[in-house]
Amino acid sequence: MSAHLYAVILAGGSGTRFWPLSRHLYPKQLLRIMGDDTLIQQTMRRVLGSVDPGRVLISTNPAQAESIRVQLGEWKDRLEGNFVIEPEGRNTAPAIGLAALEVVRRDPDGVMVILPADHVVKGEARFQAAVRLGATLAEAGHLVTFGIKPIRPETGYGYIQPKRAPRLGKEGKLAGYPVARFVEKPDARTAARYLKAGTFYWNSGMFVWKAATILEEIDKHQPALGRGLGRIKQLLDAGASRSDIDGLYRGLPSVSIDTGVMERSAHAAMIPVDFQWSDVGNWSSIEEVAPQDQAGNVINGKVVDLDSRNSIIYADRRLVATIGLSDMVVVDTPDATLVCPKERSQDVKKVVEILRKQKAPEQLEHLTVYRPWGSYTILEEGSGYKVKRVTVNPGGRLSLQMHHQRSEHWVVIAGTARVTRGEEIFDLVVGQSTAIPTQTRHRLENPGREILHIIEVQNGPYLGEDDIVRFQDDYGRNVKR
Amino acid sequence: MSAHLYAVILAGGSGTRFWPLSRHLYPKQLLRIMGDDTLIQQTMRRVLGSVDPGRVLISTNPAQAESIRVQLGEWKDRLEGNFVIEPEGRNTAPAIGLAALEVVRRDPDGVMVILPADHVVKGEARFQAAVRLGATLAEAGHLVTFGIKPIRPETGYGYIQPKRAPRLGKEGKLAGYPVARFVEKPDARTAARYLKAGTFYWNSGMFVWKAATILEEIDKHQPALGRGLGRIKQLLDAGASRSDIDGLYRGLPSVSIDTGVMERSAHAAMIPVDFQWSDVGNWSSIEEVAPQDQAGNVINGKVVDLDSRNSIIYADRRLVATIGLSDMVVVDTPDATLVCPKERSQDVKKVVEILRKQKAPEQLEHLTVYRPWGSYTILEEGSGYKVKRVTVNPGGRLSLQMHHQRSEHWVVIAGTARVTRGEEIFDLVVGQSTAIPTQTRHRLENPGREILHIIEVQNGPYLGEDDIVRFQDDYGRNVKR
Repeated sequence: MSAHLYAVILAGGSGTRFWPLSRHLYPKQLLRIMGDDTLIQQTMRRVLGSVDPGRVLISTNPAQAESIRVQLGEWKDRLEGNFVIEPEGRNTAPAIGLAALEVVRRDPDGVMVILPADHVVKGEARFQAAVRLGATLAEAGHLVTFGIKPIRPETGYGYIQPKRAPRLGKEGKLAGYPVARFVEKPDARTAARYLKAGTFYWNSGMFVWKAATILEEIDKHQPALGRGLGRIKQLLDAGASRSDIDGLYRGLPSVSIDTGVMERSAHAAMIPVDFQWSDVGNWSSIEEVAPQDQAGNVINGKVVDLDSRNSIIYADRRLVATIGLSDMVVVDTPDATLVCPKERSQDVKKVVEILRKQKAPEQLEHLTVYRPWGSYTILEEGSGYKVKRVTVNPGGRLSLQMHHQRSEHWVVIAGTARVTRGEEIFDLVVGQSTAIPTQTRHRLENPGREILHIIEVQNGPYLGEDDIVRFQDDYGRNVKR
Repeated sequence: MSAHLYAVILAGGSGTRFWPLSRHLYPKQLLRIMGDDTLIQQTMRRVLGSVDPGRVLISTNPAQAESIRVQLGEWKDRLEGNFVIEPEGRNTAPAIGLAALEVVRRDPDGVMVILPADHVVKGEARFQAAVRLGATLAEAGHLVTFGIKPIRPETGYGYIQPKRAPRLGKEGKLAGYPVARFVEKPDARTAARYLKAGTFYWNSGMFVWKAATILEEIDKHQPALGRGLGRIKQLLDAGASRSDIDGLYRGLPSVSIDTGVMERSAHAAMIPVDFQWSDVGNWSSIEEVAPQDQAGNVINGKVVDLDSRNSIIYADRRLVATIGLSDMVVVDTPDATLVCPKERSQDVKKVVEILRKQKAPEQLEHLTVYRPWGSYTILEEGSGYKVKRVTVNPGGRLSLQMHHQRSEHWVVIAGTARVTRGEEIFDLVVGQSTAIPTQTRHRLENPGREILHIIEVQNGPYLGEDDIVRFQDDYGRNVKR
């Protein structure tokens, strides 16, 4: 394993293609699509075969960082300081540039393997071998991509054609080659020809290169971006404030690393990899990664089905009954349900677009929202009231806070609650309750060893999450000073 | 209008065919399938064109009577004493026989028009004309059925072929004829032949006859049933207890009025009626009665649809997104969702059968349950707790009650609550709350003019609705003495 190797997990995502299971604030990487781990947890475990957790950088945005921290809580201490936060999405080149600055800061000879957080890979050992070979080629100055052998005439991916020679390096059965050309998403006929030719590979979006090399190549092919990154480096070195750096970042050109740098570089190389891969691009691609029953169905949750075939049926705790479906997708969540033929899966994003324009909450987040201290679930919202179940992990506590416009009632339904209300501090057990008046400082804490569940009833003219004044917070969130 | 005319609304139903909108305790007649009224409300309004509300008898069972009383609350005072309750379903002949005993008791010359509570009729004036002609023929001793002109080769209905002569009576364009023969549900080929022949009619299940005549015909063709009804009459005349009468009723033979009496009678007559009729037998038949959009869809509730055709999409407050559906049924309710092709609509009852065997709550009732004082909605149930929103109508109050195994917390979210707790009585307004310990007598009442809403959080080892001891009840429900 290279002594200089770092991993960068690209964890952004818009949450449109797996709606209603994914949401704007809860994109695909956070979903448990197959197995016990979410996709970002799977990605984390995968890179740990190549690097130590202290060398894994997470590239994400402020809205998603908290959920990612919760999901990667197992490695919390080692990941401390490893989040590279984009203040807003500017496509892949600025995000990778920002991560590269951090890698160079830690190790001028650092090599970075870049992995999207929401891909599925099967074949751990073969993946690690590809990373090893990639690192070797990267240290020799190549910009390495992993090419996937096509198994269908896919029109949704870019393709890469490698040169046959020279062979740039070898690791077991794997070898790397210079790239002859990149091809943008082809039409169906071209894709079929590529599949038949056997000399084209899917661009997986996984890369390996030296951080210094990619920064040089950005300077060369995207000079405006290169200058911007240079100024950010100066600010970072000078210990500038977060907001100054964020302001600069927002002004960077929005460029993809593929079209902006890779396709223009003289150093692009490709390793035809031999592990199984899927980017699980939409609901119909679930079949590539999830087990099917004898009738070809992928069925999850509380489903009663009669005679369906080749369908994808995702339920949760609500009952979904299906009869005689064929090649359909049915996805049920607590607040929204999707029904469409598999062949229309890619149009789910059109539905999300409509919902976004309507500012519908169903595109933004789930009824259950995860927080560093636990989670809350909205049970019902109506005029002047909101009912939540709040779950606090053992030892967890919410911020010391106050609301201007709402009072809250708390009833403990499991565990023990330590309540701060004004100047008082007291404990409540199951079946006990308390009321928190408007404009009263309060805090909810779980002093016990089991999970605390309370029902919270809010009353007031305005019940938005932003009516909150925080006085102290264990998790470093905005606090009033 | 006949001075002797009574209406009998047959309001039973198993709630299987419109699941998940219908439930065992909430069958089709209680649904708002089209328009502002539920089907039983529509049926009630329809018969009021022919009879006074005091002459409308409701034939139903104990489980459904309360919901029907709530829905027919507009005529509450006039319907007092008009519920003819079967202790258990014994098919149509015993139910009609029991109603006939009540009609004869009120008027020995009483004529009864019998209407299923869950059919849709369009053409009020033509319906009233058919009832008038039916009553005239009934007074002359005929057992009259309404025949519907077939519009498709339906295999789900019985057919009736009338004789061409003699014409038994006339009212405008309508005339009645003796029945030549009844035919049970035919096969597809026979149904197609009947449709083509033009001399066969669908048996609508609506009847008109003298109560005394149908009792005589039951005696003649179903002597065991006749004897049973005779004994029930004796008990009723003697002022016997409800339970004695119920015991006798349970022993009556289960016979349909069609096969058991009509098909054997020499007095069967048929009026070919000219109003529009549907028995809305399953989800696909919704199209016969509900308005369709330009693409042939029937869409209700919070639906975002792209490109669907000829589909039936019923949502409520949850979001349902559909893309490119063709001839599908999607029905979403707070606790269950159904997805099936229209052509499989009749198999919904198979799903309900599976759920019944699993004792699944989703086949029994909805999360919202209506009571004489208002309603409650289960927001969430979990181990050791249940959260409800309870709605109390102005002036309504729940029984004075006690629970052995659960405590309750009430938070007022709208209106004013008058609370009895042990010996105390006090009022709570929005944002106020109280706790009711286990084994404490309590009562919730709405003393105000607006609807009262509270959130109730229950805690305890057992949270079934049957853990209730009632000390006083305004609505005559079981009270501990």
